[in-house]
Amino acid sequence: MKEAPVFENALIRIEIEPAEIPWLKIFATAPCKEFSECSPETRAEIFELLDLIEREMLDYFQPDKINIASFANYLPQVHWHIMARFAYDRHFPEPVWGRKQRKADLDLPPMDRFVERLRGKLSRRQSAPARD
Amino acid sequence: MKEAPVFENALIRIEIEPAEIPWLKIFATAPCKEFSECSPETRAEIFELLDLIEREMLDYFQPDKINIASFANYLPQVHWHIMARFAYDRHFPEPVWGRKQRKADLDLPPMDRFVERLRGKLSRRQSAPARD
Repeated sequence: MKEAPVFENALIRIEIEPAEIPWLKIFATAPCKEFSECSPETRAEIFELLDLIEREMLDYFQPDKINIASFANYLPQVHWHIMARFAYDRHFPEPVWGRKQRKADLDLPPMDRFVERLRGKLSRRQSAPARD
Repeated sequence: MKEAPVFENALIRIEIEPAEIPWLKIFATAPCKEFSECSPETRAEIFELLDLIEREMLDYFQPDKINIASFANYLPQVHWHIMARFAYDRHFPEPVWGRKQRKADLDLPPMDRFVERLRGKLSRRQSAPARD
């Protein structure tokens, strides 16, 4: 069974990517292959959410670095990855798509508590787009 | 000898990453490790330039996909990658940081002509930040 989205509104949907590290994905709702094909509202919303999630991840997980990427080479629908990276995670300092560097056994604060906090922040946002 | 930047102003510097594919990097000028540590003006400028470069790459190179990423795991200074990807480039559909898929010999329009066009567009932008 597919897990419920972390958050969604008329423009975007946030999902968890199950992984060793904290990793969220933001999908554009309207069909768009390239980011420049998304509406200005969708682009602005994604940038605002990347910023908000980055700050929340830094605060909660205290990672060594945040990584952000948008490829959609396999699935031609705009989605952005945002990840908390740690000096001793499996791939650091390579991107998670790069060569594995080590076995790792990270001891991180629980993801469900992070999602709960994030949902609280998102629901309290000013001028958030209406949900469809 | 290091090549001259493609473009620079008070907030950012655009450089070419020498590669099989068209690949530019946008560096924040002010010291910042994470994107959320950059000034709002720098963040807005980088997003505007990513959008402009994406449109220019799509128009000029006619790629199969644009890829965008910000890691800075090795070099803790914010920089964004933007790449034109082709179905038959070395790594597609993997990110360029992933496993090599094939030998490739792309026949692309010249990069120097692209840079010339891009510089023209950038110099004609409205309300661009002053150069230091």
